[in-house]
Amino acid sequence: MTQLSDENRLDDAGTAGTAGTKGPASADGALAHALDRAHVFHSWSAQAALDPIAIAGGLGSLVWDFDGTSYLDFASQLVNVNIGHRHPRVVAAIQAQADVLPTVAPANANLTRGQAASAIVGHAPAGMSKVFFTNGGADANENAIRLARLHTGRDKILSAYRSYHGNTGAAVVATGDWRRIPNEFARGHVHFFGPYLYRSEFWAASPEQETERALRHLEHVLQAEGPQSVAAILLETVVGTAGVLVPPPGYLPGVRALADRYGVLLILDEVMAGFGRTGAWFAFDHFDVTPDLITFAKGVNSGYVPVGGVIIADPIAATFDHRVFPGGLTYSGHPLAMASIVATLDAMATEGIVANAARIGADLLAPGLADLAARHRSIGEVRGLGVFWALELVTDRATREPVPAAFMGALKAELMRRHLLPFLAENRIHVVPPCVVTDDEVARALAIYDEALTVAEATL
Amino acid sequence: MTQLSDENRLDDAGTAGTAGTKGPASADGALAHALDRAHVFHSWSAQAALDPIAIAGGLGSLVWDFDGTSYLDFASQLVNVNIGHRHPRVVAAIQAQADVLPTVAPANANLTRGQAASAIVGHAPAGMSKVFFTNGGADANENAIRLARLHTGRDKILSAYRSYHGNTGAAVVATGDWRRIPNEFARGHVHFFGPYLYRSEFWAASPEQETERALRHLEHVLQAEGPQSVAAILLETVVGTAGVLVPPPGYLPGVRALADRYGVLLILDEVMAGFGRTGAWFAFDHFDVTPDLITFAKGVNSGYVPVGGVIIADPIAATFDHRVFPGGLTYSGHPLAMASIVATLDAMATEGIVANAARIGADLLAPGLADLAARHRSIGEVRGLGVFWALELVTDRATREPVPAAFMGALKAELMRRHLLPFLAENRIHVVPPCVVTDDEVARALAIYDEALTVAEATL
Ligand SMILES: Cc1ncc(COP(=O)(O)O)c(C=O)c1O
Ligand SMILES: Cc1ncc(COP(=O)(O)O)c(C=O)c1O
Repeated sequence: MTQLSDENRLDDAGTAGTAGTKGPASADGALAHALDRAHVFHSWSAQAALDPIAIAGGLGSLVWDFDGTSYLDFASQLVNVNIGHRHPRVVAAIQAQADVLPTVAPANANLTRGQAASAIVGHAPAGMSKVFFTNGGADANENAIRLARLHTGRDKILSAYRSYHGNTGAAVVATGDWRRIPNEFARGHVHFFGPYLYRSEFWAASPEQETERALRHLEHVLQAEGPQSVAAILLETVVGTAGVLVPPPGYLPGVRALADRYGVLLILDEVMAGFGRTGAWFAFDHFDVTPDLITFAKGVNSGYVPVGGVIIADPIAATFDHRVFPGGLTYSGHPLAMASIVATLDAMATEGIVANAARIGADLLAPGLADLAARHRSIGEVRGLGVFWALELVTDRATREPVPAAFMGALKAELMRRHLLPFLAENRIHVVPPCVVTDDEVARALAIYDEALTVAEATL
Repeated sequence: MTQLSDENRLDDAGTAGTAGTKGPASADGALAHALDRAHVFHSWSAQAALDPIAIAGGLGSLVWDFDGTSYLDFASQLVNVNIGHRHPRVVAAIQAQADVLPTVAPANANLTRGQAASAIVGHAPAGMSKVFFTNGGADANENAIRLARLHTGRDKILSAYRSYHGNTGAAVVATGDWRRIPNEFARGHVHFFGPYLYRSEFWAASPEQETERALRHLEHVLQAEGPQSVAAILLETVVGTAGVLVPPPGYLPGVRALADRYGVLLILDEVMAGFGRTGAWFAFDHFDVTPDLITFAKGVNSGYVPVGGVIIADPIAATFDHRVFPGGLTYSGHPLAMASIVATLDAMATEGIVANAARIGADLLAPGLADLAARHRSIGEVRGLGVFWALELVTDRATREPVPAAFMGALKAELMRRHLLPFLAENRIHVVPPCVVTDDEVARALAIYDEALTVAEATL
């Protein structure tokens, strides 16, 4: 496989060419910051101490602030900008659609919507022909859960403690991480532990044992809850925010077999893992498993317009042929979002962007991050695939004690100082650049992680 | 007040000039329809019998199909296109932002986002300085509910049976109408009856009596639930989908007084009623009441990009100064949405669009619909304000028996045949054109309603 050409990313060379270039200070930067502090209420945070950087623009794997300082975006913002910033074909598609029909009600048919649904279904397994569109990942999961409950006539949704599925009523209670606790106002949600060999819940010593034991645990939870009350098992194919937990061999096929044995549906949440992130169209393409419902968002259009959705297996869709589906939203199948999906999926295919993510993962990130781990005692584990990796940072490789918050604070400052926008979660660096990242950008990022880790390790 | 100029809506005169113009048939129309039926799963419907018309484009109050047949959009799609279709300034703002930065994570500051928040807050009451942005109306209500629960430390949300608040977990259970029933998987939601004199739940004979009795009912529900367990009362300022129920004088100030007496928050859902629909910036501007939380979507940018949000009273925002707000979504404060809000609010102010909605309501729709009612025995009640009206259709004015589904089916066919896209709900026509609707378009629509009602009445 060859490296992606740079033709789409060089038109702002003065600003965007080199991470770290510093231009004249801009009053707009100060204004952006001041208006933000005065009027914008931020997610998942206490508001008082926030000091966000103001992003003025971006291109490819770079973003820059109002001073003209550019940053390598190794967070892909919220792990969504798979196609890179400001891809010209996606931008043009949005602009062209805005000139024709910027909004339309879901009840009316719309050519671009049909084309987007058809393009998405083209990447899905056979027997999944219909898409229900939403505005993002949370409401994709809401509607998948609704479909599963109504199709099965059962109530409970089993999901993993280590998971994130969105911030709305059912999605946030399906979520397993801390974000669930202050939001538990929906019923019928049960949580279990998924496989995570590095911190096994099952006293396992090998991937095979982790798989076998995680499956037995899940089966016992299913049995103890009463399978006849369970509508679906909801899983991130590769667990994202909770640590880029790649399922060990056999786990997902084992879950599928359990679901089939007990007549339970399998929902795979591909919001973060889907559309290129793992170096495949869907993350489950790596794992020999077919879900009944697939939820997506982020990578499907790189977040250029808010959108998400559910891909529905035909028997589930057929349940609602003559029975009303009781879900909907004003912007389901929004034309600008649909145009951006059509252009994104086309560009990803014709420009080899998914293949680039696979190549970068196999040829550069796997060896590059292993090399980092060899030289940094704070790296306890490296795991991932494609452009979806985590470095798990520990004070001691034997005890696997997570590094303290002060370490992560120092790390963040050192990375930002070196003009890399990082994705940090708990005691981990998630290495999640756009799928269009170049070899050179990866090399620069690896050097920056290296330097920043060296400085942070001095705090231990 | 003068009529809006036509300068923004005349560039497609050939197609858009006259509702009903028929052009050459297009293969795209057939393709749009076929792809829709094959791959698009629709909201709030059984799928088998759907036969949606395909919308190819729009301008102002008109949309057209792929055959070049244009329709008067007296539904404003889903009562969201307040500024009309394809307003050139909003389109240009989206296109310009797409050229600069089509997506950015919520954690990073962004100039356009700060400007949008500041513009919104500029129309809100004093003491509400912060906005939390979402993707639409449902998640606006989700987050308002979350804010209310965490701020008060209480669980229950009281909302009206006749209401719609969105399709996600908590929003759909806050919803009072039938869409709640198959979705009741969240706890802590309690419903009560709001005022609706035409079908009073309180045996009331006058607006004054309806107000007094509806308030006593609400107070008794509050007392019976235990006010110390109630976080908020959630109300549509003017109930939308459930019938354009304009609150009688004194009701909303009375609810505010109850909320204050019992230490409960008041959330006003302005998703459908806000940003021009009632001829004011916010519907509550008509009613001498100040809420603690305002939810919005639709009219804030006419749905050109999916967006919604919550405007937060300062004491509630301050609760989260040093305490984490546990809510968030990938596209909170999305730059294209923000650019469209800035342009929309500016255009609405400078072009007198809110004033136009008020003038159309007072000078044309109020007398025009009263005149229709005088000539059609099937019209039991006319109610509304601005460009937000309902005709309640009955078989008998004395019994107020709603017209049957067959009547509504015939009515829909007759309206569509005359090239008017209607908003029909149960036994009602909602007359909800864009706020930019012209005098001439209103006159044409009134004539069409007149003819269609005459034909439908023949079925009685
Ligand atoms: C796996 C997964 N599911 C769902 C979501 C929720 O998506 P959204 O933020 O668009 O609601 C996320 C967001 O990060 C996610 O990572
Ligand atoms: C009053 C009200 N609230 C909330 C909503 C939900 O908004 P959305 O469809 O954008 O989720 C609607 C939608 O019609 C509404 O009318």
